[in-house]
Amino acid sequence: MTRQQLVEHIFSRQSYLCVGLDTDITKIPKHLQSHPDAIFEFNQQIIDATLKYCVSYKINTAFYEAHGLKGWEALEKTVNYIPETHFKIADAKRGDIGNTSAQYARAFFKALPFDAITVNPYMGSDSVKPFLEYQDKWTILLGLTSNIGAKDFELQKVITTNEILEEGVHVSHQAVNYLYEKVLATAIEWGTEENLMFVIGATQADEFVNIRNIAPNHFFLVPGVGAQGGSLQAISEKAMTKYCGLLVNVSRAIIYASEEDFAEEAGAIAHQYQHEMSLYLSSLTR
Amino acid sequence: MTRQQLVEHIFSRQSYLCVGLDTDITKIPKHLQSHPDAIFEFNQQIIDATLKYCVSYKINTAFYEAHGLKGWEALEKTVNYIPETHFKIADAKRGDIGNTSAQYARAFFKALPFDAITVNPYMGSDSVKPFLEYQDKWTILLGLTSNIGAKDFELQKVITTNEILEEGVHVSHQAVNYLYEKVLATAIEWGTEENLMFVIGATQADEFVNIRNIAPNHFFLVPGVGAQGGSLQAISEKAMTKYCGLLVNVSRAIIYASEEDFAEEAGAIAHQYQHEMSLYLSSLTR
Repeated sequence: MTRQQLVEHIFSRQSYLCVGLDTDITKIPKHLQSHPDAIFEFNQQIIDATLKYCVSYKINTAFYEAHGLKGWEALEKTVNYIPETHFKIADAKRGDIGNTSAQYARAFFKALPFDAITVNPYMGSDSVKPFLEYQDKWTILLGLTSNIGAKDFELQKVITTNEILEEGVHVSHQAVNYLYEKVLATAIEWGTEENLMFVIGATQADEFVNIRNIAPNHFFLVPGVGAQGGSLQAISEKAMTKYCGLLVNVSRAIIYASEEDFAEEAGAIAHQYQHEMSLYLSSLTR
Repeated sequence: MTRQQLVEHIFSRQSYLCVGLDTDITKIPKHLQSHPDAIFEFNQQIIDATLKYCVSYKINTAFYEAHGLKGWEALEKTVNYIPETHFKIADAKRGDIGNTSAQYARAFFKALPFDAITVNPYMGSDSVKPFLEYQDKWTILLGLTSNIGAKDFELQKVITTNEILEEGVHVSHQAVNYLYEKVLATAIEWGTEENLMFVIGATQADEFVNIRNIAPNHFFLVPGVGAQGGSLQAISEKAMTKYCGLLVNVSRAIIYASEEDFAEEAGAIAHQYQHEMSLYLSSLTR
């Protein structure tokens, strides 16, 4: 999916909601747990019920891998079930040396029809670039995540030394930034606004204005709204661009909204988020 | 596998070789490529030929995921084929928020019988700890990797501020370290020498003495020998402990040693590495 197509879906559907399919078999309704294809059956009903309120689905690979071969099969069936009209994210947090990242890119962009994959920046440029080589596919690089552990490294202070030519003389300038800022500023050079997004956790709302200074136009995938406590209003006010520039993910608060009428309730909660999002979108002057 | 068992295997087999099963179907012998179960067939023959020269196998998940369901099936069959006497590493570079990392741990330690998994530290403590909760299982955290991109973030300088009590007064001390040093020093508190190892690339031999100061007794998984150019001698001299403390991985230089007699040649190259390793081990006084 191109950036233009994504933006069109957002404005026509009046939604920048991404529904996270973190499907945990121990948390799905009891009557479905014994179904021979429980995970896919659950996902299918969630997708049917939420389709018109969202623009994207995010499949968290861990929850599928935990069931071995059967889980990987449910993952394949699920991504193939999501229609072309929705942006399909593999939340896989992959990244390795170049020849290995090329295999991961193949896994999610060729063997499976994902539009995007989340990638971990730790190993640097050659671990990220193979994902950026696919036409109309997206790399969503971890920037500042929503979890408590973000403080351990992402929010540590890094010294950057730049050589600048001042009146014909090379002068060394030092700047101190958070590691995640360094990641964003460095990675922006590797891709474009058409193939690179960043993960910025909704629980980090105070950082959003600063982050928009580093990446004014890139799309952000924002997890942490719902079960993790991030505020949709705060991040929308602080980080929305004139082309929206946000995909806000909600997983548990939608998919586990109810035990009985789980699909209906998931649809209702997704509708609430979509309605709130339409208000923030209407305040934009494009 | 416990640390004591691993050390016993190393000294009885006189080897700290890990054979990397980065099995790329386009690189395996032509006569095998049309085999209905090509990847597993290739792996099986490589394992049979190298078993007595190594103590560990490392399965690089990317090369399996690239083939979808069939690839995941080959991964399952391969890890189940490796005998109990060998330390089984999932080179998966996983890591996510706590509830998701718990699912990855389940995938590799329960659904599959791996002894260890490589984990990316970027997201911090709660992304790593779920892997450390399994008895006799290991987390191998990325420290300093062997690729060119290591310079982008791992080798960036981080400022650490410590509050120290000096003669009854709190004094702030600042230290400047590489990010990977900060990762090691921080993560050492999360696990023990019995369940935590670090990935340290062989191409970073100059850093090994320094790294041993931070983690004097932990095992290191060392990739980068062979195709990537790291020196077995240099890292053995600089980083071996009295209990060895090293697992040196070789992938391409062993598994793609020859087109025709690939298994025989893989065995011969593994034997050469084992012989060289026995010399370095014999210099240890335990």
